[in-house]
Amino acid sequence: MLKSSFSHPGIYCFMLPTKRKQLIISGNSALVIKNTEMPEPASHEVLIKVTAAGVNRGDILQRRGLYKAPDNASAVPGLEVSGKIVKAGIDVTSVKVGDTVCALTEGNGYSDYALSHEDYCFQTGKLDLQQMAAFPEALFTIWHNIFQRCGLTREENILIHGGSNGIGVIAIQLCALLGARVFCTAGSEEKRALCQKLGAEKAFDYHLPSFFEELSHIPSLKHGKNGMDVILDIAGGDFIERNFIAAAEEARICLIALIRGHKTTVSFAPVMTKRLTITGSTLRPLSQLQKSAISEDIRERVWPEILAGKIKPVIDSVFPFSEADLAHQRMESGLHSGKILLLPD
Amino acid sequence: MLKSSFSHPGIYCFMLPTKRKQLIISGNSALVIKNTEMPEPASHEVLIKVTAAGVNRGDILQRRGLYKAPDNASAVPGLEVSGKIVKAGIDVTSVKVGDTVCALTEGNGYSDYALSHEDYCFQTGKLDLQQMAAFPEALFTIWHNIFQRCGLTREENILIHGGSNGIGVIAIQLCALLGARVFCTAGSEEKRALCQKLGAEKAFDYHLPSFFEELSHIPSLKHGKNGMDVILDIAGGDFIERNFIAAAEEARICLIALIRGHKTTVSFAPVMTKRLTITGSTLRPLSQLQKSAISEDIRERVWPEILAGKIKPVIDSVFPFSEADLAHQRMESGLHSGKILLLPD
Repeated sequence: MLKSSFSHPGIYCFMLPTKRKQLIISGNSALVIKNTEMPEPASHEVLIKVTAAGVNRGDILQRRGLYKAPDNASAVPGLEVSGKIVKAGIDVTSVKVGDTVCALTEGNGYSDYALSHEDYCFQTGKLDLQQMAAFPEALFTIWHNIFQRCGLTREENILIHGGSNGIGVIAIQLCALLGARVFCTAGSEEKRALCQKLGAEKAFDYHLPSFFEELSHIPSLKHGKNGMDVILDIAGGDFIERNFIAAAEEARICLIALIRGHKTTVSFAPVMTKRLTITGSTLRPLSQLQKSAISEDIRERVWPEILAGKIKPVIDSVFPFSEADLAHQRMESGLHSGKILLLPD
Repeated sequence: MLKSSFSHPGIYCFMLPTKRKQLIISGNSALVIKNTEMPEPASHEVLIKVTAAGVNRGDILQRRGLYKAPDNASAVPGLEVSGKIVKAGIDVTSVKVGDTVCALTEGNGYSDYALSHEDYCFQTGKLDLQQMAAFPEALFTIWHNIFQRCGLTREENILIHGGSNGIGVIAIQLCALLGARVFCTAGSEEKRALCQKLGAEKAFDYHLPSFFEELSHIPSLKHGKNGMDVILDIAGGDFIERNFIAAAEEARICLIALIRGHKTTVSFAPVMTKRLTITGSTLRPLSQLQKSAISEDIRERVWPEILAGKIKPVIDSVFPFSEADLAHQRMESGLHSGKILLLPD
């Protein structure tokens, strides 16, 4: 059943169904397709007809009951989509109905129609719309952590743990493009080859942790010291203390996941003697203002490079909504390289 | 025996002895007075006839063999002095012979004549010259850690562990003067009363660690959140994880000593969920350029307040060089409040 809808003087909307299909977390932590009411975009929101939704580790934690969505966010997983804008809130000015975009979402990305704030949308131009769903979460995470929190600059050394994952493959390209020396870790020969193809000077096997010592001797061109100036860590656990070995004086270490464990025994002496900074974040609790500010930076500093094809999406695999559980299993296996996408059936 | 000396066109020096008295660390880790050659100030150095030398925890660690002086620094302890400049290096322009100053020193402070870089000297004006030896190490440490590393601003909440020690008593006054809300810990009723007199809103007994929870509920006026925006920690050990409880979102925690232990088991999850920053430093390894930059900030932002009597030195006790071991015992006892000074005999 279709109904006509109207959102803004002069902006007529497509004919929209009254229901949308969403992937809901069922009682036994599976993802099941459910029809729900089609939402109305709030004043600065847009409704996007989804081409693809990105899968993120946070979705898996949420499905397993290990992460609760923020109070003001949708309980439906999905933090990024690509697609066409089909309806715009009354105060939306930066995008319009008909635009093809990729966008960060506050949950609700696992839907055939998803809401997003207009500020979180990026025009995809002539690029492959499906593949563009690989960008939003990675770019927001990278910009906030590597640049805002850690202040990476040209000629500094960065170590990116998990270089072949969805964030890593974008981080390598962006950091290399901005003139940093990029090193990373990955778990297989094939993944390490991918990382080096994307711009990493060297990719290390994290099963052989002697590389932390090797990294500690790499000259930091900018500061005339040795070691990594910035470390983006998804590992945590025993890698936290090892990061201190690889770190140059005044290094900034940023935790964005703690896959090897959140609790660990650490000597904090190097924090003083090397004047280290350890920080971290999760993206979702940032305020709309903070996210809009990140978005503005990305739009100005990064997006032109993406439109010019200098930073490319890396897609691991694509699953229909009906096989969402397989998509999650693929991420949990750790065998993927780059982004896993879900497509509405 | 005296000799005439000459260091700069137009700047005649006082008649100086050929030897100076220094407190040397003996084989059995005692401090013994020894006569050594009077040094020549290098181009940007001054020679100060010492009125008083401050005792710092670093001196004690060095005496015990737990801290090695940097390669380019004197092996004689002593990181700050007050006194009169008696000789100036050939390129010195910012101070002159005859000036009374307090100064940061690269070791060699436990001397009746001590060298310092001209940039590290502060004119003491009409203030009590002996007491002014309480300022340099505290001000450099506070400025670098609380302001440069942690960026404390007006209306933010700061927790200062060890509020009654030599650094704490100055930090409380300075942070309160700059408009922050100051909380601190101290180990006795008398010390807590002193901290509150100096400007702390409330001083907590660190033997009763429930205060971390209490601090987590104190509103941060600037950010509309609860908890401490900055924590200056000398404790480390089990207090590191407890600091995470007291910390507001986006709090910055700075380690300047690890009295309760450097190694501890910590969950790093709050670093991500609260977007914390943990950093730290030791002052001595900073380059001369970094120290000169700190000095410039202090001269502009803090020193006028000191000359105006708005930040007062707090002197715990004064010992002659011949009783230096007693001065160190006093600090090791933890019974002191404020600065312990050594006076050349």
